Amino acid sequence: MHPNEALFANEGFYLAFAQGDVDAMEKLWASNPSLLCVHPGWPALTTRAEVMESWARILGNPSQLQVAFHVQEVMAMGEVVAVVCYEQVGGAVMLASNWFVEEGGAVRMVGHHAGVCGNPPPLPEAKVPRLDA
Amino acid sequence: MHPNEALFANEGFYLAFAQGDVDAMEKLWASNPSLLCVHPGWPALTTRAEVMESWARILGNPSQLQVAFHVQEVMAMGEVVAVVCYEQVGGAVMLASNWFVEEGGAVRMVGHHAGVCGNPPPLPEAKVPRLDA
Repeated sequence: MHPNEALFANEGFYLAFAQGDVDAMEKLWASNPSLLCVHPGWPALTTRAEVMESWARILGNPSQLQVAFHVQEVMAMGEVVAVVCYEQVGGAVMLASNWFVEEGGAVRMVGHHAGVCGNPPPLPEAKVPRLDA
Repeated sequence: MHPNEALFANEGFYLAFAQGDVDAMEKLWASNPSLLCVHPGWPALTTRAEVMESWARILGNPSQLQVAFHVQEVMAMGEVVAVVCYEQVGGAVMLASNWFVEEGGAVRMVGHHAGVCGNPPPLPEAKVPRLDA
């Protein structure tokens, strides 16, 4: 997997998030029964069923705040690629680590861990996915 | 990689942490120039040099609090294995996701993301690495 493929999938993740697109989120994550997702302040979700249920709840919540993201770094580590992002949600900045593997020739997410970032670096160009692309 | 090999490496990680063993920590992490480490409240560290410098600082700090850990789950995802742990540090509970790959026949850490867990589940049997094994 080329790191750019993970960046593309990462962008798809935040686009699905911003658009509230549960189907896209479903397709973006790997089919593996074990997946890791940590939403800020939540306990860890460790099964595909739990992770997808959480996204359905979050994306279906009409008062869910809009998310903007800024990629800090993409890291190739053999068969796995990690993308570190800062997320701007309301007035808060979250730090997220997103993990991708190749599955059946496609790049799929296997991990997302987001938490409040106490001391964020300057974020000059936060990227807001277009809502009406 | 068998998930138990990742659990063994994960235990080695917390043992190195508890013993303040910088050399063991150095050997435990992959040799990849890009590695991901998020300490609670810190910005993300994304190079091996940064990650190792951070551990040298943390492990060399005489007032560093002792850490106990409790594995919630080990997740095999193809070539990569994730281990979710709750860490007890002083009175606080951290949620950590630890990522392992195989490198030259050995299991090595490529990612550690720890943050305060706002709403931890009950932790019946926290595991404190032995200090004088």
